[in-house]
Amino acid sequence: VASVDVQVGLLGYGTVGAAVNRLLTEQADDIERATGHRLRVVKALVRDLDKHRDYRPADGVLTSDFADIRDDPSIAVVAEVMGGVEPAGGYVLELLGGGKHVVSANKQLVARRGAQLFSTASAAGVQLRFEASVCAAIPVIKVLREALVVTNVHRVLGIVNGTTNFLLTEMEAGQSYDDALADAQARGYAEADPTDDVSGADAAAKMAILATVAFNSRVDLADVDYRGIQEIDPLDLAAARELDMVIRLVGAARLVDGHVDVRVRPALVDKQHPLAKVDGAFNAVMLQGDAIREITLEGPGAGGVETASAVIADMVSVIGTMGTGFLQNDAAWRELPPLPAGDNRSPFYFRLSVEDRPGALARVAEELAERSISVARLLQHQNGDGAALHVITHEARAGALDEALDAIAGLPDVRHRPQPLPVISERGVVELGWA
Amino acid sequence: VASVDVQVGLLGYGTVGAAVNRLLTEQADDIERATGHRLRVVKALVRDLDKHRDYRPADGVLTSDFADIRDDPSIAVVAEVMGGVEPAGGYVLELLGGGKHVVSANKQLVARRGAQLFSTASAAGVQLRFEASVCAAIPVIKVLREALVVTNVHRVLGIVNGTTNFLLTEMEAGQSYDDALADAQARGYAEADPTDDVSGADAAAKMAILATVAFNSRVDLADVDYRGIQEIDPLDLAAARELDMVIRLVGAARLVDGHVDVRVRPALVDKQHPLAKVDGAFNAVMLQGDAIREITLEGPGAGGVETASAVIADMVSVIGTMGTGFLQNDAAWRELPPLPAGDNRSPFYFRLSVEDRPGALARVAEELAERSISVARLLQHQNGDGAALHVITHEARAGALDEALDAIAGLPDVRHRPQPLPVISERGVVELGWA
Repeated sequence: VASVDVQVGLLGYGTVGAAVNRLLTEQADDIERATGHRLRVVKALVRDLDKHRDYRPADGVLTSDFADIRDDPSIAVVAEVMGGVEPAGGYVLELLGGGKHVVSANKQLVARRGAQLFSTASAAGVQLRFEASVCAAIPVIKVLREALVVTNVHRVLGIVNGTTNFLLTEMEAGQSYDDALADAQARGYAEADPTDDVSGADAAAKMAILATVAFNSRVDLADVDYRGIQEIDPLDLAAARELDMVIRLVGAARLVDGHVDVRVRPALVDKQHPLAKVDGAFNAVMLQGDAIREITLEGPGAGGVETASAVIADMVSVIGTMGTGFLQNDAAWRELPPLPAGDNRSPFYFRLSVEDRPGALARVAEELAERSISVARLLQHQNGDGAALHVITHEARAGALDEALDAIAGLPDVRHRPQPLPVISERGVVELGWA
Repeated sequence: VASVDVQVGLLGYGTVGAAVNRLLTEQADDIERATGHRLRVVKALVRDLDKHRDYRPADGVLTSDFADIRDDPSIAVVAEVMGGVEPAGGYVLELLGGGKHVVSANKQLVARRGAQLFSTASAAGVQLRFEASVCAAIPVIKVLREALVVTNVHRVLGIVNGTTNFLLTEMEAGQSYDDALADAQARGYAEADPTDDVSGADAAAKMAILATVAFNSRVDLADVDYRGIQEIDPLDLAAARELDMVIRLVGAARLVDGHVDVRVRPALVDKQHPLAKVDGAFNAVMLQGDAIREITLEGPGAGGVETASAVIADMVSVIGTMGTGFLQNDAAWRELPPLPAGDNRSPFYFRLSVEDRPGALARVAEELAERSISVARLLQHQNGDGAALHVITHEARAGALDEALDAIAGLPDVRHRPQPLPVISERGVVELGWA
């Protein structure tokens, strides 16, 4: 097969864009061997033409006019690496509508505008790929869409935010939240304004994308119930340690009786569980399905060159499948309803401060039992003039537990309304065996 | 796009073949949505037409005549799930030569006959895919070939044999080798004749395939230096425990200054290393490269339905890329020489029984120092009337260590020639950080 040049456009030329250009140049031979094509960046959209840039492109490549990319018929594929929902979203729509394939590293865009983007791509007969939007170089989208086609994935568990995983690892080792955050910022693991990471919003966008691809039903960011790590108390960390668990920010997407449930929560994770073993700023995604039991992918979930590597892998896949229409369509071909609020089930942990008076424990236990919630583990400590109770329930309906905790908060001896955390202790896969 | 029927042939209809037929039937809609095609098994080659079969195919599908598949022009793709090097190898050659795409789950065949098979496929313009030949449903071949195109993977570490990983996990918990093996056989994790697994031969074939794909240079099974777990002594297990390590059968493939080194060895693995955390019969493969730092894939490395899932994923990928020639060629486009024997470098562990006389330790240390091997950790125990020394070296040339151990074995106070085991303690990736 004769080599064919493919002209590439970039929207954005920051850390990721520069790394895409560098890798496309340095690895051109590897790409040609894989695809029969040489990829070359011919235009890159930036706001400021005169800014200093790492890996400066050839003269004439940088442009501040989007039309230079949109209207260039020689450009077949565009990588959107500028971030933000607008103007990136409008640009991507115009490019897809105009018949160009697009590869995006933009989780906010894919999670918020997926439906419109994919239907536009589908109508125009072009591909929109988005591997780099979730966990950078970890190829979880390709694996879900291409390797696990016949496996009925029904659960996705993920540590998909490296910033919070690093913070929690440091806090586990005794650092305060503030010190851990300052450390993360100094190392470049956390932004100056860390809100998007620590609030769980970043993880929620990634889980929305993963759930959409895994369950083939659109999950928008607004459908994800998320909470961050800001409210984690040192007492929770100490209790986790005592229970031989760690606290991790876990994204969980489940298919339950034809309903979809996607949430992000700080969770108590058993130390033996694979997700407890994910180091520092790394990410991991565990996929559970009928034919595969479970497959876990772990690696760096961020980084300029890691993200660029995923962007290029998507371009290579676009080129490799252009003729056949393989998987170019929206993954979401059905509409599954969300699981009603409160219907999600899990084992839960909660912590209770009670006056140290006879009968306090009995009344707490009664409120749980009345709602058919049974206790799996219980720790009680003296705590100044009162007692601290640490409770782990067996699997329970979240709504029932919330009712029980409301009632418990109203008991005369109880000092606060406890906030439950989900507990992840079993892998959820049955006995391994093969013939 | 209108749906198009694709007729599939199977070589073999055992556990994997029956599972392929079942999944193709039950998941036909999922496959059609992904590819626009419906896949249907029309012929399956078996030796005995009358044997009882799980998921018995429709009348007329089973045949004992290979020509029924080879000469049927309606069959576009064939899955080889019969195992063994012959007659499978001859069949696959004929099919590829005759213009049929082939998907193989046969590691012995791919590891021993890869060069011939791929050149035949290439000449005929068809694809030979082999995801299922390594670690069943873990999509490591697809990830290496399609997701990590620009990442210069230079090291692959793998626990690629579930049988031995299960045995070692059990032995760590105190079982004898014989009891652990009996247990594994009872659970179906080990064959009645476990030689292929416990000798390291099975892992060696998988590492040959992984190294070929990762480094793009043919590694034949004969190029892999392998040793199994039969000679592991309870004293080694006890020492590992004391050093806060575990013993695992690790396959390691490295690209060192343009040379390829592939070996399988029992190794001491630090308990904090991801490979130490792989449970029981699971497999894991860690890929290290320039643009990705490291990505680890973990999951079930065997099983009928898991293997079938990978076979079907390969068929889906063949169909999705048939028009474009994407990655249908041999991964091995260059010829890299093997690393000369003894030139591989690693930290090593060895255990020494010495007479408890003054000066014994000094003479051992001298032999090491003379060959520039420095000691990282040392444990000494009383051991009956002598002393047991447990030594971990810093990174050393294996050849130099072998010379030192030969000399040490000749010392008057030393009882045996020690067998060194490699030590895996660091992930080998530098400080994580991103901007």
